[in-house]
Amino acid sequence: MKRLSQIALVALLICLLPALSLVTEAAMDRDKLLKDPGVYGTFAVFQVDEDWWKLDKPARMSAVSEMKAIFQKHSEKVISDSYLLRGLVEKADFLVRIHSTEILSNQNFLIDLMGTALGKHLKNTITFNGITKALNYVPSFPDDLKTELKTPPPQGSPYVIVVPIRKDAEWWIAGQDERTGQMKEHTDATVAYLKTVKRKLYHSSGLDDWDFITHFETSKLDDFNNLVIGLLKVKENRHNKRFGDPLLLGTIRSMDEILDILSR
Amino acid sequence: MKRLSQIALVALLICLLPALSLVTEAAMDRDKLLKDPGVYGTFAVFQVDEDWWKLDKPARMSAVSEMKAIFQKHSEKVISDSYLLRGLVEKADFLVRIHSTEILSNQNFLIDLMGTALGKHLKNTITFNGITKALNYVPSFPDDLKTELKTPPPQGSPYVIVVPIRKDAEWWIAGQDERTGQMKEHTDATVAYLKTVKRKLYHSSGLDDWDFITHFETSKLDDFNNLVIGLLKVKENRHNKRFGDPLLLGTIRSMDEILDILSR
Amino acid sequence: MKRLSQIALVALLICLLPALSLVTEAAMDRDKLLKDPGVYGTFAVFQVDEDWWKLDKPARMSAVSEMKAIFQKHSEKVISDSYLLRGLVEKADFLVRIHSTEILSNQNFLIDLMGTALGKHLKNTITFNGITKALNYVPSFPDDLKTELKTPPPQGSPYVIVVPIRKDAEWWIAGQDERTGQMKEHTDATVAYLKTVKRKLYHSSGLDDWDFITHFETSKLDDFNNLVIGLLKVKENRHNKRFGDPLLLGTIRSMDEILDILSR
Amino acid sequence: MKRLSQIALVALLICLLPALSLVTEAAMDRDKLLKDPGVYGTFAVFQVDEDWWKLDKPARMSAVSEMKAIFQKHSEKVISDSYLLRGLVEKADFLVRIHSTEILSNQNFLIDLMGTALGKHLKNTITFNGITKALNYVPSFPDDLKTELKTPPPQGSPYVIVVPIRKDAEWWIAGQDERTGQMKEHTDATVAYLKTVKRKLYHSSGLDDWDFITHFETSKLDDFNNLVIGLLKVKENRHNKRFGDPLLLGTIRSMDEILDILSR
Amino acid sequence: MKRLSQIALVALLICLLPALSLVTEAAMDRDKLLKDPGVYGTFAVFQVDEDWWKLDKPARMSAVSEMKAIFQKHSEKVISDSYLLRGLVEKADFLVRIHSTEILSNQNFLIDLMGTALGKHLKNTITFNGITKALNYVPSFPDDLKTELKTPPPQGSPYVIVVPIRKDAEWWIAGQDERTGQMKEHTDATVAYLKTVKRKLYHSSGLDDWDFITHFETSKLDDFNNLVIGLLKVKENRHNKRFGDPLLLGTIRSMDEILDILSR
Repeated sequence: MKRLSQIALVALLICLLPALSLVTEAAMDRDKLLKDPGVYGTFAVFQVDEDWWKLDKPARMSAVSEMKAIFQKHSEKVISDSYLLRGLVEKADFLVRIHSTEILSNQNFLIDLMGTALGKHLKNTITFNGITKALNYVPSFPDDLKTELKTPPPQGSPYVIVVPIRKDAEWWIAGQDERTGQMKEHTDATVAYLKTVKRKLYHSSGLDDWDFITHFETSKLDDFNNLVIGLLKVKENRHNKRFGDPLLLGTIRSMDEILDILSR
Repeated sequence: MKRLSQIALVALLICLLPALSLVTEAAMDRDKLLKDPGVYGTFAVFQVDEDWWKLDKPARMSAVSEMKAIFQKHSEKVISDSYLLRGLVEKADFLVRIHSTEILSNQNFLIDLMGTALGKHLKNTITFNGITKALNYVPSFPDDLKTELKTPPPQGSPYVIVVPIRKDAEWWIAGQDERTGQMKEHTDATVAYLKTVKRKLYHSSGLDDWDFITHFETSKLDDFNNLVIGLLKVKENRHNKRFGDPLLLGTIRSMDEILDILSR
Repeated sequence: MKRLSQIALVALLICLLPALSLVTEAAMDRDKLLKDPGVYGTFAVFQVDEDWWKLDKPARMSAVSEMKAIFQKHSEKVISDSYLLRGLVEKADFLVRIHSTEILSNQNFLIDLMGTALGKHLKNTITFNGITKALNYVPSFPDDLKTELKTPPPQGSPYVIVVPIRKDAEWWIAGQDERTGQMKEHTDATVAYLKTVKRKLYHSSGLDDWDFITHFETSKLDDFNNLVIGLLKVKENRHNKRFGDPLLLGTIRSMDEILDILSR
Repeated sequence: MKRLSQIALVALLICLLPALSLVTEAAMDRDKLLKDPGVYGTFAVFQVDEDWWKLDKPARMSAVSEMKAIFQKHSEKVISDSYLLRGLVEKADFLVRIHSTEILSNQNFLIDLMGTALGKHLKNTITFNGITKALNYVPSFPDDLKTELKTPPPQGSPYVIVVPIRKDAEWWIAGQDERTGQMKEHTDATVAYLKTVKRKLYHSSGLDDWDFITHFETSKLDDFNNLVIGLLKVKENRHNKRFGDPLLLGTIRSMDEILDILSR
Repeated sequence: MKRLSQIALVALLICLLPALSLVTEAAMDRDKLLKDPGVYGTFAVFQVDEDWWKLDKPARMSAVSEMKAIFQKHSEKVISDSYLLRGLVEKADFLVRIHSTEILSNQNFLIDLMGTALGKHLKNTITFNGITKALNYVPSFPDDLKTELKTPPPQGSPYVIVVPIRKDAEWWIAGQDERTGQMKEHTDATVAYLKTVKRKLYHSSGLDDWDFITHFETSKLDDFNNLVIGLLKVKENRHNKRFGDPLLLGTIRSMDEILDILSR
């Protein structure tokens, strides 16, 4: 009897192996995708419609399971992060940030997500698209600033802020040197906050009605408020035709927790 | 018999003690939270949807009780104030202003509020977020102005006005001295109204699509109209890229009264 | 028999006396409220929702009676005027203009109105708030212009136009003398239309996202078109950051007639 | 027998006479109303709501008959033209242009139209109001240009374009001579298209959030595109604060055909 | 027996001939319509409403078949291309681009499409109209640039981007030479991307609230991002009053695949 159960365990492990390796592979992808240039990021904001709440609890629970399976199904091609906006941003419940090497994979994931029973009750109120690229101005910065920029960012922060930005024509028409000078001043203003605010940049010109999507994670919103005030005080701010509007503020939560809040 | 009822009374008091101390503690927190820097304020505007009114009276009454319990449940972590906007602001019924030392607590309170039976009939049409900070320009003001600013604000005013503000790039790029000079002129214009208009300031850069959320309470709206005209006449007004839009005007009412109006 | 009916008539008159005196008092208030400074005006625009029309006729008739009673109930504290916008303004059916000495009375009236069975089918799409004040620039005008301004306005005009206005920062920062000069030029342009266009001004700074709400009544819309063109041609027009948008155009109709149109 | 039917025919003709004369009178009015100054034009754009399509075919057919009767009922006071926008303009199905000598008649017609069973399923998404006036600048133009402007406009064109326009403050503050000069340049640019593009102008200042409503009919949209480019190239274009937005593009169709499309 | 089936085959071929020649003709039209000047393009964006998903699967399948027949029915007069926006653009599911020599044909096709059972569940959220024209500035470009512009565009690209553009008054008022100079600089910036980005231009002045609709197809969105940044850096960018907003990003998919996604 005992032997039989050992055999069953081994058989089970063999069955699970592909899944396990998949998870490892996905984890590896995650680190790489979040660092590499040429990766496409899609930020999709959803709001639950009023009819969702009229479903009975079993229907909502089943819809939640179906959606979780979609995340699993696409985990080989896209990595996704989830954020709860509900309560802090009007007309928005949660944000899913998706990365992959082809934006088609982001789209296919979102189509499947929106095609679930819960997805059919989601309004996709805001979407931002962007691509990661190699650093543009940093290579021309002085060495001491470059060294500062190697400060490791904070980990495990609870808050997320996403600010889309559109520059004016004068910004782009100014030469690379002029822009490098202004970006150095901009970057100097961020140094004091490198330890408490983690930042990621996406380029959006031609992929969306923005030039940049800036993504921040922090546990200190007071520091973040001071950081933004610092950035408003440099000359480069004159060239922000739009800064936010909409700005997104939320908390980093697992999709499980977000779905739990929506299926209570 | 009498003795028995005395014992019952004592037993009852013992049972109630934690609740009583809680209330006291909350009251203490309230004063402190409304004065301290580093406190997060969230202004959430709600509008009842058309389906709410189709519920029968018992369903509405029960939903109201459930919501009151949410306010009680979170009273240790957040303090909340309620304002009736219905009738004075289009597409808005009421405003809840929430304070806590972590904006996560504001979010958790609002998620619970929005998760009630009534909450599911509320559209969250406007949200402002901000943080309180130590005074920025006042320390550099002349002593006589500092003294004026110690005028105690009015108490028990029936009206509230909330004006979100966004400054232009030139405001922030101007040096601290230039801004202090313009803010002194701004503050001079407010002195005549310190006795009739109570004011509270929140900093929002990076937390919302605004730089400041200004909150006023008064019993004299004619004074408030004159105060705002006075502020429009100073040079600092040139740097208000947005002033209101939306401005919120309402009356201070207990949540009980607001819920009563919504469950009639 | 005849005597009996005489007694009944007298008894009936006695019963009606309080109502009659109320009406007289209200009428008196009306003239005063429409002339005095320090009176609060609220302009509330409503649109009937699509579900209203699905009610059967008796339900609509009963809802109309309930609403008429609300107007009666509040007639001691507020005076109200009604205008039909339907057909001339998109997404708007009618406008109620309310005056009282405390804006709280305007709010309480509107809450009761919106709490009726018909009110629950009304979307409050636009609201303007303002306060009447003593004339600001006229005391400095030359005597002949002052005399002209005493021209009695037309009575019984069928059309109403409401234009909210927001001035730019330069307007307010300009001194009183500069503004008086420009307002004299503005007023000169209105003289030719004093006989055919009646005008009333509300101050809104701090009470709404406007500085002024201007209310006009006329039977000659061609004159009104020419008057506005005249006002566009004076320098003060450079300082209108917003002029209308939304402008409201409608016809003066009793609430009875408006409700009749909505309950056909 | 034959004689009897002759008598019947005569009797029938006598019965029909008032209707016939009415039609003649209306036709006469039509030409006059479309030429005279002092005529009010209302452009009302409607979109069918989603519930309309859920009605069964007989209900839709009956609603269509009811609406046709409204057009007949008001034909003595207003003339109306209908245009199909569906497919070419987002969120719009059709446009009704109404003319009469009192805008009240336009409103009464539209109230009746919106009060039908079909009307209750129509959203009135856009409305423009204006008045026709005598030519303002043409009397000062040189004779050869005046002669050109007598070119008869095309008849029976299938396409309609409506462009609302708002001028900036500098346009109005500039003197009549300056404006005449710029309008001559503007008019020169239109000469080449007088044969293929028919044009009608409405003045809207004070009647709507526009200064002019321009209405065009043509069979050659390529000519119209070139005409507009010609108008964009003259200095007067600097003073168009808003030009279109929304521009309406559609096809001239009888109300019968439009209602047929909506009741299929 | 065999002979009989041969006869049947011939008879079948004869029956099919008109259809076959139609397909050939249509294919010929397609190439021609996509190259010729004077062709009207309509871009119609649709979003499925929430009620669509409540239909049962057979109803959705039947609605899909009905819509496919509409495409077939109009294939002689219009050519159509379909793009999936869902997941990459908020509030949009798919885009249909239609070409014909008369915009009336585009309208008639869309009216039929919107009149199907599925069409009644489609919201037409965005529409752009334009006309193709002969090259305006290229004839004045230097020969080497003209040669570069003959680079064959890429085929079979999976991504589409549509950017509507509105120029400012100064652009149009500048003379043809000034505009040619700026457009040469603009075109120089595109040369490096001719191999990877396919482009088509529509003129919209007077047909829509835009001056140009620019349509791109590519398999390399990173190249497209760089191309747009290159275009932002030339002086002509100063004259883009609006560039996108809304920009559309999607994937080229057959209508069958799009309908399959919507009927799952």
